Amino acid sequence: TSQITRTERHGMESTRAMSPKLTVELLRQLRLAMKNCKYFSEPIQAYIIPSGDAHQSEYIAPCDCRREFICGFNGSAGTAIVTEQHAAMWTDGRYFLQASQQMDNNWTLMKMGLKETPSQEDWLISVLPENSKVGVDPWIIAADQWKNMSKALAGAGHSLVAVQDNLIDAVWLDRPQRPSTQLMTLGLERTGMSWQDKITALRAKMRERKINWFVATALDEIAWLFNLRGSDIEYNPVFFAYSVVGMKTIRYMLFVDLKRLEDPAVRQHLQLDAPSRPELSIQASPYEAVHTELQAVCAALGPKDKVWICDKAGCALTQVIPKTHRSQISYTPLCLAKAVKNATEIQGMKTAHIKDAVALCELFAWLEKEIPKGTVTEISSADKAEDFRSQQKDFVGLSFPSISSVGPNGAIIHYRPLPETNRTLSLNEVYLLDSGAQYKDGTTDVTRTVHFGTPSAYEKECFTYVLKGHIAVSAAIFPNGTKGHLLDSFARAALWEAGLDYLHGTGHGVGCFLNVHEGPCGISYKTFADEPLEAGMIVSDEPGYYEDGSFGIRIENVVLVVPSKPKYNYMNRGSLTFEPLTLVPMQVKMMNTDMLTQKERDWVNDYHRQCMETVGAELRRQGRKEALDWLIRETQPIA
Amino acid sequence: TSQITRTERHGMESTRAMSPKLTVELLRQLRLAMKNCKYFSEPIQAYIIPSGDAHQSEYIAPCDCRREFICGFNGSAGTAIVTEQHAAMWTDGRYFLQASQQMDNNWTLMKMGLKETPSQEDWLISVLPENSKVGVDPWIIAADQWKNMSKALAGAGHSLVAVQDNLIDAVWLDRPQRPSTQLMTLGLERTGMSWQDKITALRAKMRERKINWFVATALDEIAWLFNLRGSDIEYNPVFFAYSVVGMKTIRYMLFVDLKRLEDPAVRQHLQLDAPSRPELSIQASPYEAVHTELQAVCAALGPKDKVWICDKAGCALTQVIPKTHRSQISYTPLCLAKAVKNATEIQGMKTAHIKDAVALCELFAWLEKEIPKGTVTEISSADKAEDFRSQQKDFVGLSFPSISSVGPNGAIIHYRPLPETNRTLSLNEVYLLDSGAQYKDGTTDVTRTVHFGTPSAYEKECFTYVLKGHIAVSAAIFPNGTKGHLLDSFARAALWEAGLDYLHGTGHGVGCFLNVHEGPCGISYKTFADEPLEAGMIVSDEPGYYEDGSFGIRIENVVLVVPSKPKYNYMNRGSLTFEPLTLVPMQVKMMNTDMLTQKERDWVNDYHRQCMETVGAELRRQGRKEALDWLIRETQPIA
Repeated sequence: TSQITRTERHGMESTRAMSPKLTVELLRQLRLAMKNCKYFSEPIQAYIIPSGDAHQSEYIAPCDCRREFICGFNGSAGTAIVTEQHAAMWTDGRYFLQASQQMDNNWTLMKMGLKETPSQEDWLISVLPENSKVGVDPWIIAADQWKNMSKALAGAGHSLVAVQDNLIDAVWLDRPQRPSTQLMTLGLERTGMSWQDKITALRAKMRERKINWFVATALDEIAWLFNLRGSDIEYNPVFFAYSVVGMKTIRYMLFVDLKRLEDPAVRQHLQLDAPSRPELSIQASPYEAVHTELQAVCAALGPKDKVWICDKAGCALTQVIPKTHRSQISYTPLCLAKAVKNATEIQGMKTAHIKDAVALCELFAWLEKEIPKGTVTEISSADKAEDFRSQQKDFVGLSFPSISSVGPNGAIIHYRPLPETNRTLSLNEVYLLDSGAQYKDGTTDVTRTVHFGTPSAYEKECFTYVLKGHIAVSAAIFPNGTKGHLLDSFARAALWEAGLDYLHGTGHGVGCFLNVHEGPCGISYKTFADEPLEAGMIVSDEPGYYEDGSFGIRIENVVLVVPSKPKYNYMNRGSLTFEPLTLVPMQVKMMNTDMLTQKERDWVNDYHRQCMETVGAELRRQGRKEALDWLIRETQPIA
Repeated sequence: TSQITRTERHGMESTRAMSPKLTVELLRQLRLAMKNCKYFSEPIQAYIIPSGDAHQSEYIAPCDCRREFICGFNGSAGTAIVTEQHAAMWTDGRYFLQASQQMDNNWTLMKMGLKETPSQEDWLISVLPENSKVGVDPWIIAADQWKNMSKALAGAGHSLVAVQDNLIDAVWLDRPQRPSTQLMTLGLERTGMSWQDKITALRAKMRERKINWFVATALDEIAWLFNLRGSDIEYNPVFFAYSVVGMKTIRYMLFVDLKRLEDPAVRQHLQLDAPSRPELSIQASPYEAVHTELQAVCAALGPKDKVWICDKAGCALTQVIPKTHRSQISYTPLCLAKAVKNATEIQGMKTAHIKDAVALCELFAWLEKEIPKGTVTEISSADKAEDFRSQQKDFVGLSFPSISSVGPNGAIIHYRPLPETNRTLSLNEVYLLDSGAQYKDGTTDVTRTVHFGTPSAYEKECFTYVLKGHIAVSAAIFPNGTKGHLLDSFARAALWEAGLDYLHGTGHGVGCFLNVHEGPCGISYKTFADEPLEAGMIVSDEPGYYEDGSFGIRIENVVLVVPSKPKYNYMNRGSLTFEPLTLVPMQVKMMNTDMLTQKERDWVNDYHRQCMETVGAELRRQGRKEALDWLIRETQPIA
């Protein structure tokens, strides 16, 4: 894969984290560009630098880290705005400390969620001279964001303008190239469905809704649709592309850097040289041609033709489609189809989770031996976990940066160990490890919270509340058609009863050898627009509790939505429940078993029996004796 | 009150329900009016008749029942559309049967929620000739509905036009007059806050948000603001009015039919003749003047002045406010302030619920004696309940039509007994009574499900699931700031586990001597835009289970949100729980107590102890011996 090495990664982060980026000169250059009529017919008075790339990606490639480049802050969420006089950056509570450390005093940190913090719109209106022009790269800003910002500015006499050349790129001399990694083709044995059949299914959905064209912009959707993988973005096996799929006509296109299509395996996979049927022939154009290709499609639209595009797609691409032909949707048909895993994908996910459990059993057995020596740190533990995982078949890489955190670091929800924060694992502190990997057959994401000495009564109490929440979700039975957000409170009830809570959602969708976070389903109080859960969907179940300055607890399994057969069947709707895919023991030592009901004790014993049966067999097969002994001990039933 | 008598009511309903309304002639006249340029400069090709009145009222006055007049269907939700060729009426699943019985074959019933049913927009587009004009009364259609419909029609080359004269009124020769009942003034001892102080608090909110004017259109908000009650709409102690409250200027207005202001008590209450302070002087204008009065206000706005109006207010009134000055909100500051009851209101609600419990204890004791005689019916039981309630101090009327239902009728969630459906109460069937009253000190709403013989094991099982759900919500502890919809699943978990469910929300806000349904809080999976629960809010807790053709079960208490003090206090947020205001025993005979956990048994016993203590004392005081004996027996602890 194209991933930079682990050492380089840690090195880069530590440099960035330690001292603020000096931005005087950069801001001067950017302000010059804002006045330069080469980029826009008139000078602009403000320039907005959003966080993302042109594909609504959660993780982005180095060449797209424009907000980080201009202000120094490298968190996952944040928008920078530069005016002639001011420079301000909005981010949320997770990142207040980090942002304040990474930005120099040319920047004002705008703390989102605090009452006194103005919105970007209000702030702009308060600082701009009359009739100002506010510029933004229309490829990156989402269509819905453009609409809101544009409206707010217009209401105050200003205007939002599309600056086609990105002004950050104009001043970013050593900007990295857009990655173009090798494509990996996935056969039926991994995907369970050919891309040809996926295209046919997509067209059926389009026909049903009287849609003639579909524009795919999300990288994971395009990778899923064509059964291809890449490594353009770290942790996410995707590649830069757009795709425009026609309904009636034979014409459709896959936009990729054309060099990648020289690989014979890829050419054959996509049937580029000999399409089986004319309506499945792929017309490939370079990535940059998406604009003109979509224009050509739109120029030929009939009066009633409709084009589907996600409402989070970039504004510029969205606006290529004339308004009367545009049909914007929150979740594309690919997003929905991808979320429901087929039998092959489910089998792959199960296999991946067994291998992942083998690696973690090895890790925990190894940690027990090594920790008393005082030599294991957050970073070395995470690295060891990666080593064990990399020994498993079809390992590709990690699925996200490991959260390996000891004691008080565990209370920082989005913690990532850096050399200057790196704590040593000991017998006296709680250890939280949230990690996962990409295998060619599936994606994993698991969190275990353990103590290698003797946990305090309070730590055990809190762990047990979290465990009760985890079980309440995992064992819940609910009707077909239930949205995940309706299950979120089950995970919190025990914590709430004690006056405790955690400030993140309970679960997210998980891709199959794709992004570890994917829509359109999840388990969170924050969303309402999630799609109903259905059998075959895969989500995480990860309640937690975080005691600032002391410890963090999270218990996370990836779980599969499966049919359930309770006593009755109201209105023939059918019922669902979850089946854990993650099969790593939960530490009994951390439990106050007196606080568990009989049902909960039964759940724990049943879960541990499954871990033992399934992962035990694989450990035996792989001859990993120490890990097997550890597993046998850790899965003893509780009374 | 202005309520028509009970007999008249039942009579009217039965007539309406038995045979479809003949609409040939009415439709002919309406279509003539649609072509008559007296009403609009050009003929219109379709006319939309929405359900509501100009105040977004849930219950409407007879003069506003225009949709019922034109098509015959008298359910609470439904929109009729008449074109030159077609007449169609959209309603939801609760009303499919009723609507099909009440409408003749000039009408097509559009079953909302079914996949094959077109939306109003799509249907219009499919049946209209090119470039059609679709008319609607802009006073009745909500601003947000206008916007959506207008956009959809414009996209297909049609236009939505505002027809100022209501075309139904034009053909409705015997249309009743708009009611103008006597106003009742409420003093501090009932409201806990003078209207002057409420105005001051409203202005503080306006100042905080830099708002200069506030337009109140919801009738309960206006009644609450001025501490006045009326009886213009059955069951809802409100009166027709608008109110425009200024921020800086001294000018504000209460629109009412001026005749009502001749009452000396009202004149004094509103200080019409001698305002204490100039900024509290009320300039009264007739109801119909709202348009011109608001125009005058808007004509004098400064360039940055803002006017608040609810986004569900009528389109015509909303559009009086120029777009740049308009600030539309989902929940007005009055709606929010009204929802949080003050100490006086809470005390009033408690008193009202004790009186209401007295009446229900009497009813159930009476039913036990009378049912074996075979003479009690759904209607006579509901009437008897009203009689008992009317004997209580400060009784004003019912708060909604009683749902009194035996056996299979109980499974019809919005059932209301009619002579032709009226069943006799017996020892063999489950009886569900959902009823409530308006007292001058508070509003009640309670459902009890009982059996006067021996319930079946299955009925008990289902009742116990519902009871578990009721307790799970009522006893829930949750952080300050939690939205009610996050508690909805607690009410369903036990039912879901058995494969059962109910298809309605779990709770709604309850007014204090105001509407029995009020926003902005509630407990329902259907909403996400509800406001967080806070101490002093009052909601219902009413899970149920309905077995078609057999029985219905619902257990409903009105509960008060109160602070809770669990063991910990995460982030100093504080916790909340519920305190039941309703104090009527839940029938132990219907419970399968083996299915209850110890916690649940304790909850039942504790609740019954409170019923006995509080209501028992009042029954003793009122010398109601038989009801007291019944209460003593029904509140015996379970083992």
